[in-house]
Amino acid sequence: MSDYQAPRREMLFALRAIGGLEAVLAAHGDDAYDMETAEAVLDEAARFAGEVLSPLNRIGDRQGARWSDGGVVRAADGFAQAHAAFREAGWHGMPARTEFGGQGAPVLLSTAVLEMWKSANMAFSLCQMLTLGAVEAIARHADAALCATLLPPMVEGRWTGTMNLTEPQAGSDLAAIRSRAVPTGDGRYRITGTKIFITWGEHDVAENIVHLVLARLPDAPPGVKGISLFAVPKFLPRDDGSPGERNDLVCASIEHKLGIHGSPTAVMSFGEGGGALGWLVGQPHQGLACMFTMMNHARLNVGLEGVAIGERAYQAAREYALMRVQGRGIGLGEGDSATIIGHPDVRRMLMDMRARNEAGRALAYYTAARMDEAHGHGAGAAAAQALVDLLTPVVKGWCTESAQRVTADGVQVHGGMGYIEETGAAQHLRDARITTIYEGTTAIQANDLLNRKLARDGGAVATALLQRIAAEAETWAAGHVPALAALGRALSPAVAELAATCALQVARHGPQAREAAAATVPHLMQFGTVVGCWLLARGAAAAQAQLDADAAADAGFLQTRIAVARHAATHLLPEAAAAAAVVREGSASTLALDDAQF
Amino acid sequence: MSDYQAPRREMLFALRAIGGLEAVLAAHGDDAYDMETAEAVLDEAARFAGEVLSPLNRIGDRQGARWSDGGVVRAADGFAQAHAAFREAGWHGMPARTEFGGQGAPVLLSTAVLEMWKSANMAFSLCQMLTLGAVEAIARHADAALCATLLPPMVEGRWTGTMNLTEPQAGSDLAAIRSRAVPTGDGRYRITGTKIFITWGEHDVAENIVHLVLARLPDAPPGVKGISLFAVPKFLPRDDGSPGERNDLVCASIEHKLGIHGSPTAVMSFGEGGGALGWLVGQPHQGLACMFTMMNHARLNVGLEGVAIGERAYQAAREYALMRVQGRGIGLGEGDSATIIGHPDVRRMLMDMRARNEAGRALAYYTAARMDEAHGHGAGAAAAQALVDLLTPVVKGWCTESAQRVTADGVQVHGGMGYIEETGAAQHLRDARITTIYEGTTAIQANDLLNRKLARDGGAVATALLQRIAAEAETWAAGHVPALAALGRALSPAVAELAATCALQVARHGPQAREAAAATVPHLMQFGTVVGCWLLARGAAAAQAQLDADAAADAGFLQTRIAVARHAATHLLPEAAAAAAVVREGSASTLALDDAQF
Repeated sequence: MSDYQAPRREMLFALRAIGGLEAVLAAHGDDAYDMETAEAVLDEAARFAGEVLSPLNRIGDRQGARWSDGGVVRAADGFAQAHAAFREAGWHGMPARTEFGGQGAPVLLSTAVLEMWKSANMAFSLCQMLTLGAVEAIARHADAALCATLLPPMVEGRWTGTMNLTEPQAGSDLAAIRSRAVPTGDGRYRITGTKIFITWGEHDVAENIVHLVLARLPDAPPGVKGISLFAVPKFLPRDDGSPGERNDLVCASIEHKLGIHGSPTAVMSFGEGGGALGWLVGQPHQGLACMFTMMNHARLNVGLEGVAIGERAYQAAREYALMRVQGRGIGLGEGDSATIIGHPDVRRMLMDMRARNEAGRALAYYTAARMDEAHGHGAGAAAAQALVDLLTPVVKGWCTESAQRVTADGVQVHGGMGYIEETGAAQHLRDARITTIYEGTTAIQANDLLNRKLARDGGAVATALLQRIAAEAETWAAGHVPALAALGRALSPAVAELAATCALQVARHGPQAREAAAATVPHLMQFGTVVGCWLLARGAAAAQAQLDADAAADAGFLQTRIAVARHAATHLLPEAAAAAAVVREGSASTLALDDAQF
Repeated sequence: MSDYQAPRREMLFALRAIGGLEAVLAAHGDDAYDMETAEAVLDEAARFAGEVLSPLNRIGDRQGARWSDGGVVRAADGFAQAHAAFREAGWHGMPARTEFGGQGAPVLLSTAVLEMWKSANMAFSLCQMLTLGAVEAIARHADAALCATLLPPMVEGRWTGTMNLTEPQAGSDLAAIRSRAVPTGDGRYRITGTKIFITWGEHDVAENIVHLVLARLPDAPPGVKGISLFAVPKFLPRDDGSPGERNDLVCASIEHKLGIHGSPTAVMSFGEGGGALGWLVGQPHQGLACMFTMMNHARLNVGLEGVAIGERAYQAAREYALMRVQGRGIGLGEGDSATIIGHPDVRRMLMDMRARNEAGRALAYYTAARMDEAHGHGAGAAAAQALVDLLTPVVKGWCTESAQRVTADGVQVHGGMGYIEETGAAQHLRDARITTIYEGTTAIQANDLLNRKLARDGGAVATALLQRIAAEAETWAAGHVPALAALGRALSPAVAELAATCALQVARHGPQAREAAAATVPHLMQFGTVVGCWLLARGAAAAQAQLDADAAADAGFLQTRIAVARHAATHLLPEAAAAAAVVREGSASTLALDDAQF
């Protein structure tokens, strides 16, 4: 079982060359975050991730969270202590805005730190992610009194938060929600209903849990326009803010899942004793909009999870490949590597893993940087927000689908040992498998990309992005650096093809809605591949510039950035072309059959 | 948890239209197998698979095989009884040749039956597969006395067989084997050593286990040319053939694996008490050749496992998609499906799964039919054997890689429920994950395809196959049936591209050995995709011919065969083009870095 070491250099390179960290820090407005501080934060986070969270990853997997009668859930050994250390070190509130009591770190920097938590221990990281998502929804939509009660302990991590959307009959389709909320007359509500798939819905790592619950008021219209959001704490806060009386809610069971065993996935039963007390968050019937506040942020972070698990799978595979002696690679002599990294196909898998991970990291960091820009008051804020909206489903969909390939390759590099659970490679595959499902399946991301992003502005934001990519690709292609010229030549037709499929999908939207919907997932994959490869090419250009400018630069590291970008161009871009062909030609066969013919 | 129902109609269609079952039966020479019998065999096998083996699949997964002190291994509840029923019904020896005491069924028919066992309960099926592989090796290489002792109980299934190749330091690289065999002077040998990853290496479902063990004689040359094969029974046969004294071998432990929990994977320790008694199989130092006898057959069957698990994953996903109500698919009205099969992306996944499964089945059955042809004495026997040799690594590599995608999609169709183990979808993903690894990883298959098949004859056998495909594609393209013409037009450039990459790889072999090796896996994937899509197009042509000829034909079923072929052409063939681009352009970046840069 390998340990995780944060890829500090690669992350810092991506933060600067692709995320533009210096500019983000300069615009951030809080002098507390300069480059030196940012590097120190990354170092400390790397240490905490490697020393505290990573060693618990396997324990969490083997032991899992444990449910017992009465709805008590105990986290795996060490998780409660790690959570205490995590909040005492101030990590819990680091990404939260200062106005909610957080440290207000730039999103870009927080994103790198979150990647570390997720690589080190994805199951553990979910508790903070859900809590801060709930913080965001409460801070934006709840009234001042509720914010004053709930936010301080939640930001600090003494209380955690959950997202109670799903019911047995209502998963992707929230219109089918049946949970009910009845006013008590004193400004509160009594909530009844059953919610499933509630991540960290019950546990013993914090003193209270604030459930954000979607439910219907008595006068609610049907469908998604009749859903309201309620804050329903496990223990009702006393006047002094401390957790008081136990609320009428219970964890009925936890799921036996393929992975993320350390993260309890609860069935929550509200109001078996007459109704759990809750407070309305936001306006009546506006619950979906409030929930989306937390969901959009979570989507970016789940995309990041794909990168994080992929990175850990890569590290484990690399370590095994550098250690395992098994035949000498073809064409190698006595002086060459005697370990399996000498085998060309092992190298191919490692390079594929790396190209996917680094493209995914580039997508996530680039989008995070745009979030910082959008939060600012600069001239580009609105344009940055439009890019965030466009890219969020791409980051979520592409990075998590990519993680399926990366973690499968991670097992494959280990050969037979990869199939043995003790090795740890299989856990990454199992953990990664949820990421394409929760916070909206890949199809939901892909439909969001078309229906709510591309089609709403006729593809304008995407077109502007793709024109910029095309222009940069042409510049590289016309330049005199062979490696960059090759990247430019590979990108030019790929981006032209993407512009064409965007136009095709926008044109189909509406008149050929089913043909369009049959192609949204391949289209999202094409989109993510092209944009990801572009960002890696930008990184390569930055690496080349450093090599040109600084004789003392670490040539091995910088040339690796160029090689990874080139690998992405030669191995990933052909997949974009294949996806484009499916977008163009594939819908008819997808829709050809009657239900009875399946 | 869904049950398995053998897709009898689809299998029979593939057996006839793609495998040429009538011709195979006619040439088989045993009047016992006519079409009526074949159909009856399939019906009975389908019943046994569905009623006896399938219900144990989940029990095997949950309970697993259990090891206890002293090296006793108990199979999961019901497995021993099922194995007894299996052999009593005569299924165990069905695929074995009559000269070994088997029923001598045509390979093509046995292949369909084996597919059912593997779909119903992959873990269970491995015991028979390994045993019959051992039977093949013993029958071909052991002397008459050993055959007389071992074969009858093994063919019948009263004794089972294993394949003891791997040692901790010797996995894919058998040259590193250290186990030793010392002659006793009475024609026997004393074997010492430790073997790992021994499938069904110890269990309680049969009265004896014959281990085939690779070990070195005292005078053995180093490397693979110094390995000999020995039969080492758990209980030494008495003169009357019954199992007698316990041999000096013990199961030291069994592995905790990602999947196939019902199949015990043993660490076997030979000779802790001075040496396990064994008999030489074949000539000294010729063990590898003997082992390949059993391995080649196993490779085809592991490829079939990919198809079988994919089929079961498809059935579960289809069932869920037809039952789960969750939003109405875009563009659908009140009268249309209210279940998730109405969602275009769910249909896309189901069609992808199906296209991959049916292409894989076509590849496996086509190759099995060539094995029957090769076993015969017809004029085409040698050519058929050459095709079997060429296609065996393709079937193994392509179908098992394909199963990774199919079983992942199977989880995805289930949404959040797919991640819950009780649903059963995740088991298929876990079970399938071993298939790209054991019996030679995908890279080993791909290297075999290039180094031992394509390069040995300069690509002649492949060229002849591809010329035939090109000619058929042209005929379809020029025909007046639009669906077939579209298939022909899609296949023509794909097969031309495959011919070009075959020539490129053959040219690279030797002078650019590492560049070639970096591209063998994408090349195998391209190869399998094109040949699989061709075979599906053949099926489509046969379906069209039936539609044209017979007004009473089941149009819904036959048009589905055409639609699946079309889906493969529009969704899978673009992947072949992407793989071809990687073969052409991808090796440089794969090989660009030093070990230290990973």
